[in-house]
Amino acid sequence: MRALRYHGIKDLRLEHDVPEPKCGDHQVKVKRQLRWETPYLLTGRSLLVHEYFSPTFIPGKDSPHPITKEAMPVAIGHEFSGEVVEIGAKADTSLKPGDKVAVQPTLACFSCEPCRGGHINSCEKGGFVGLSGGGGGMTDFVCVDPQFVFKLPDNISLDVAALVEPLAVAWHGVDQYDVRPGETDALVFGAGPIGLAVIQCLKAREARTIIVVELAKQRQEHALHFGATHLIDPTKEDTVKRAKEITNGVGPHVALDAAGVPASLKAAAAAVKANGTIVNIAIWEKEVPFNPNLLVFGEKTYVGVLGYLQKDFAGVIEHIANGTLKPEKMITGKIKIDRVPEDGFKPLIEEKDKHVKILVDCRA
Amino acid sequence: MRALRYHGIKDLRLEHDVPEPKCGDHQVKVKRQLRWETPYLLTGRSLLVHEYFSPTFIPGKDSPHPITKEAMPVAIGHEFSGEVVEIGAKADTSLKPGDKVAVQPTLACFSCEPCRGGHINSCEKGGFVGLSGGGGGMTDFVCVDPQFVFKLPDNISLDVAALVEPLAVAWHGVDQYDVRPGETDALVFGAGPIGLAVIQCLKAREARTIIVVELAKQRQEHALHFGATHLIDPTKEDTVKRAKEITNGVGPHVALDAAGVPASLKAAAAAVKANGTIVNIAIWEKEVPFNPNLLVFGEKTYVGVLGYLQKDFAGVIEHIANGTLKPEKMITGKIKIDRVPEDGFKPLIEEKDKHVKILVDCRA
Repeated sequence: MRALRYHGIKDLRLEHDVPEPKCGDHQVKVKRQLRWETPYLLTGRSLLVHEYFSPTFIPGKDSPHPITKEAMPVAIGHEFSGEVVEIGAKADTSLKPGDKVAVQPTLACFSCEPCRGGHINSCEKGGFVGLSGGGGGMTDFVCVDPQFVFKLPDNISLDVAALVEPLAVAWHGVDQYDVRPGETDALVFGAGPIGLAVIQCLKAREARTIIVVELAKQRQEHALHFGATHLIDPTKEDTVKRAKEITNGVGPHVALDAAGVPASLKAAAAAVKANGTIVNIAIWEKEVPFNPNLLVFGEKTYVGVLGYLQKDFAGVIEHIANGTLKPEKMITGKIKIDRVPEDGFKPLIEEKDKHVKILVDCRA
Repeated sequence: MRALRYHGIKDLRLEHDVPEPKCGDHQVKVKRQLRWETPYLLTGRSLLVHEYFSPTFIPGKDSPHPITKEAMPVAIGHEFSGEVVEIGAKADTSLKPGDKVAVQPTLACFSCEPCRGGHINSCEKGGFVGLSGGGGGMTDFVCVDPQFVFKLPDNISLDVAALVEPLAVAWHGVDQYDVRPGETDALVFGAGPIGLAVIQCLKAREARTIIVVELAKQRQEHALHFGATHLIDPTKEDTVKRAKEITNGVGPHVALDAAGVPASLKAAAAAVKANGTIVNIAIWEKEVPFNPNLLVFGEKTYVGVLGYLQKDFAGVIEHIANGTLKPEKMITGKIKIDRVPEDGFKPLIEEKDKHVKILVDCRA
């Protein structure tokens, strides 16, 4: 079958002779696999762009992933939807061939202490389908555990379903704070794909104020479209001062950091009100300077979050279906699978402020 | 009256002609003042030693404190007990002259947003009696708000009552985590006065494991006396590895940082289990390098705490009275008020590992 695979830094190859995974074959021990076609696949999330240059979740040639046992090259695509084409003989699921689905690409060992406690997103061996082996969205077929496969309501298209994964990241992050409808003031750092997803989730939860800190003009426009009530350009305004002004001198209840830079960390900690919360959704590249006194004075709480759980996928699908999440305009381009490096990564990198998500059509 | 006052860096003077504060005089607006003798006063907490060299809470000569309106020189002593000698005419209290009491030295404006929300320890103008003006423990008399004055049960001596303040700092910090009797594994960084108080509070809460990270031999011995179940010398062992070994490979549920150095921050974040909590009780001197990924991977929570509330003073007094807190051995020396710099600060600085708290007798 076809598979877009990662062979090394900036080396993505569309291959036509990759063996098609068999249901209950190489994953026979589990015997709960199903597989489906992947007509649409999505790229563009910062994580994949990051991996393109500097593999972190993608296992090296000599270090196979502990769960998939696969090493580079691996198929990519961790944000995807598709259609079920086969159910493993012993799969414990009500899914049927023909069902349209969104897939949670979680890989977990189910035996470590975090997994046993239900925190599979903190699995000690964890990874992602589409980054860590185990197939990927940008292949013709992929086999996964049915507990991570969510049947779509009729009013959610496969295009939009490919957006469930990044929205689930944001949903999980926003869920760490008890947003009160009409009462909660929130501050969001960054209006890239995850920041925009955070804005939508805050709007779905009926936050009173959604202040977005973003310097790029096009991203500011996206932020307003998706529900920002106020914008702060940190190159022109004092973020902390302005955030306090907007909130009547008090400061926002919660800050969500989807930027992950020293300035966002400091401003988030300084801006939130006494006993406020900072939720960090960003992945950091290195150590940054920080003074914990910013959390001590005012007794603030900083929460690290990572990925999502099944309830987050279910929550996002439910809210897209009932119309409180409207992510359609996150799709800013569509390309064919054989043009991913040229037409997918290139504009995402060179015109990063213009694009949010570029959808990859794998049918042709 | 006599007052030990801070005139500048390393410049403490015992003065004999400081005006005696009158009940309902300079604080007439409140009209809830009482005053008492302070036969015993305590020094030695890191905060005061810190201020001795580098005033932070002590207002400068040209910058009076917004609540007390006082500037340097100010009376010192924020950890103290005493005896009530007078009740203001309109004071709303059941206290009576002759009552033995412990005093919470909180100064708060009661009008800012944190104060209105009940978080007077995060008051935007806040300070401490004995550092920010408003009198101090090392004076003959002090007038304070009766809501901060706690009558002592008969079985608590004035000596021990002077330890309630540092114990309340620790009690408040430990209270941020739901310690489960016989189940919770805790990791404590630093066995100075506050670290030792944390150990006692964890023991009073019946934590299963109390692992203490401390390199000084004498402090290690104090830690064992007060309830440490395990010691880690970070100069000889890998703190994170050892803490995980002690907790069956999982990591402690909660870490309490009373050291406040880059190494404790990193080790605390790395050592706690997935979804674990780090409570920071330290005051930091400057920015330190930190990678928030230590909190992201494992979805950990970092909580800043500062000071205490009335319920913490009440909790400490209740637990000293019922014997679950036994802080007597924190008093490692007693001196007279006219020898504070020579006999108080000097050994605390030069023999800091030997001493925990030195009590100052103000009666003579």
